[in-house]
Amino acid sequence: MTELLLRDARIWGHEDAADLLIRDGRIAEIRRAGQDGAGDGAEDLGGRLVLPGLVDGHAHLDKTLWGGPWVPHDAAPGLMGKIRNGQERRPEFGVPNADFVTALLENMIVCGTTHVRSHVDVDPLVGLGSVEAVREAVERHDGRISAELVAFPQAGMLISPGTEALLEEALKAGVESIGGLDPAGVDQDAVKHLDAVFALAERYGAGVDIHLHDGGTLGAWQFELIIERTKILGLGGKVTVSHAFALADADPATRDRLISGLAEARIALATVAPNRGLLPLRLLGEAGVPVTLGNDGVRDLWSPFGTGDMLERALFQAKGTGPRDEDIELALDAATYGGARVLGLRDYGLSVGDHADLVVVDARNAAEAVCVRPRRSLVVKSGRIVARDGVLA
Amino acid sequence: MTELLLRDARIWGHEDAADLLIRDGRIAEIRRAGQDGAGDGAEDLGGRLVLPGLVDGHAHLDKTLWGGPWVPHDAAPGLMGKIRNGQERRPEFGVPNADFVTALLENMIVCGTTHVRSHVDVDPLVGLGSVEAVREAVERHDGRISAELVAFPQAGMLISPGTEALLEEALKAGVESIGGLDPAGVDQDAVKHLDAVFALAERYGAGVDIHLHDGGTLGAWQFELIIERTKILGLGGKVTVSHAFALADADPATRDRLISGLAEARIALATVAPNRGLLPLRLLGEAGVPVTLGNDGVRDLWSPFGTGDMLERALFQAKGTGPRDEDIELALDAATYGGARVLGLRDYGLSVGDHADLVVVDARNAAEAVCVRPRRSLVVKSGRIVARDGVLA
Repeated sequence: MTELLLRDARIWGHEDAADLLIRDGRIAEIRRAGQDGAGDGAEDLGGRLVLPGLVDGHAHLDKTLWGGPWVPHDAAPGLMGKIRNGQERRPEFGVPNADFVTALLENMIVCGTTHVRSHVDVDPLVGLGSVEAVREAVERHDGRISAELVAFPQAGMLISPGTEALLEEALKAGVESIGGLDPAGVDQDAVKHLDAVFALAERYGAGVDIHLHDGGTLGAWQFELIIERTKILGLGGKVTVSHAFALADADPATRDRLISGLAEARIALATVAPNRGLLPLRLLGEAGVPVTLGNDGVRDLWSPFGTGDMLERALFQAKGTGPRDEDIELALDAATYGGARVLGLRDYGLSVGDHADLVVVDARNAAEAVCVRPRRSLVVKSGRIVARDGVLA
Repeated sequence: MTELLLRDARIWGHEDAADLLIRDGRIAEIRRAGQDGAGDGAEDLGGRLVLPGLVDGHAHLDKTLWGGPWVPHDAAPGLMGKIRNGQERRPEFGVPNADFVTALLENMIVCGTTHVRSHVDVDPLVGLGSVEAVREAVERHDGRISAELVAFPQAGMLISPGTEALLEEALKAGVESIGGLDPAGVDQDAVKHLDAVFALAERYGAGVDIHLHDGGTLGAWQFELIIERTKILGLGGKVTVSHAFALADADPATRDRLISGLAEARIALATVAPNRGLLPLRLLGEAGVPVTLGNDGVRDLWSPFGTGDMLERALFQAKGTGPRDEDIELALDAATYGGARVLGLRDYGLSVGDHADLVVVDARNAAEAVCVRPRRSLVVKSGRIVARDGVLA
């Protein structure tokens, strides 16, 4: 029986300071602060804020150059320019590289992320090499962070022969979800693309997470196709649409229609909080559509930006969502509870019985934590201290 | 004679590592790294990057609540809602407060800012109290940071009787510049407003810095009025337009016309890199219009966001400017050399003879410094180490 006592904690959502007793990886007791004497395994938080472990719901771990060389960005503009740049220059830098992924995961851990969903490129050039690199890196961290993978046809599926078979191979090898990519705008046949993706999901009991950059009416139409298939196959609760720019940019009537459809089909959304294309979190929350927030690619051949810090990503979302504490908390919710809901994490949170995945921040409240993003004082995964003051424990 | 030797420095813009000898507050010598033995006052930078001291060209120091209570944002939407909220709730929290300003300046210093231009509210309610609070806070830091103030009619000038006389009083009391605020949109008479502001500037030899949120054709028209007055009065090089949303959002023909006019009149721009309303830094640079970047208000009754970190602000700018190293450096230029140019800082930079205002970052190049924004290793102001590893020295 392992125990950890966090004394004088300000738990997000609670009024008073509390002592948090963690036993065997779960929150065992929450008591009024000051009831306990010091003891072995006790940490005095000094009134710091405790958040549930941050959830990165949309990453591309396999692509990262973190811990490797600095590569000046040199892709042609637009989505296809980035796709080609990623494919063509990957070998030059030895990407995918388990060392780079390990380094990025380390930064994510010290920043308080305890679970990540990573899309992982699957294509005829790399085969399942990216899946293997990411899995190896996660294993090296020995339980400090958990990960769910999405087999992702980054270079297209129909337009990249051999990819569909590889996606199936990935699912056979235990990859949890299957991805899709702009069924119309990139893969040129929305119906055929979605039929294939959903068929694989059904056959292997996998989740679905579709990148949908396509905007306007083309994007809105594909939402309808995804909603239709999710309902017919009874995959509600297992389908995510990532980016969803068509919804972000839609006129109010279209937006409301899409949101209703998503809610009815129990489809979730993932966003990376770009400057343009921010999702209407309040409306989505009111409609019951869960949203997960993610860092997207971090320092890779697509973009030099990013650090893996989910509080920073929450700030990017909050800057668009609004300045009120409750607006900022909406963004943090997407980085925590929303992500857990989308990714199907059970017993996630700050109640007795929940898994003890926690992050401690020197802030007076959640809004301040997002605005200032102090170095994380403590990160706990499954009841074990995995990072302290920005350094892996 | 005081000396400081920075060994093994990677100077922004230089190929090879160098040793930087600082004497009596200036850069005295730049030598190839490794030529010097260790000595008193020697700091081994281990190849870290040296940037010139960051310049915050648009702050509102007087408004801050930094170091004070957390105040959930509660203003009505829009510019006027924020103006009213700031005015009405100021007394409730004892704003302006020299302690809060001191605390914010401390965070700016440890983040590498060595000079700041702060707009300071002047109105019949606060009188010159904000000027005094900011001056006191700057003095408390005893040369660790320098500041230039702009007497700013935040509540309007024509619509707030008594303000014009107070602005004049501020200039008499040595405040360096006079501000203006949406001469049409807020103050209701663009010509009268600008004539009064420019007349005061001319009389007292002061600079001018006009907040121009007004967009569209109304904003474009006011640009023309400002350009006209700057030329006639020969105030080229002393006038800044802040925010400049009308230029950011203009159609290409209007934008190009405004940029030509600004360049001809030698008017500068200030931006705080909002999600929407990013200035076209490359075009402005090509036209010779200098741009300074600023943090705007930091945690005040206008907004809970902000930390005072200019590298973070450069990231916000770079996220819109582009992912190439040279795009990111454009944003950093606005946070350094551009700011120095707009604010008229003499002998600013990284050459022999320049003032030794420097910041040291653990990054391989400028783009990485902006993308990652590591805790600043060392901050030097006038040749003196003023902060180290995020703590005031």
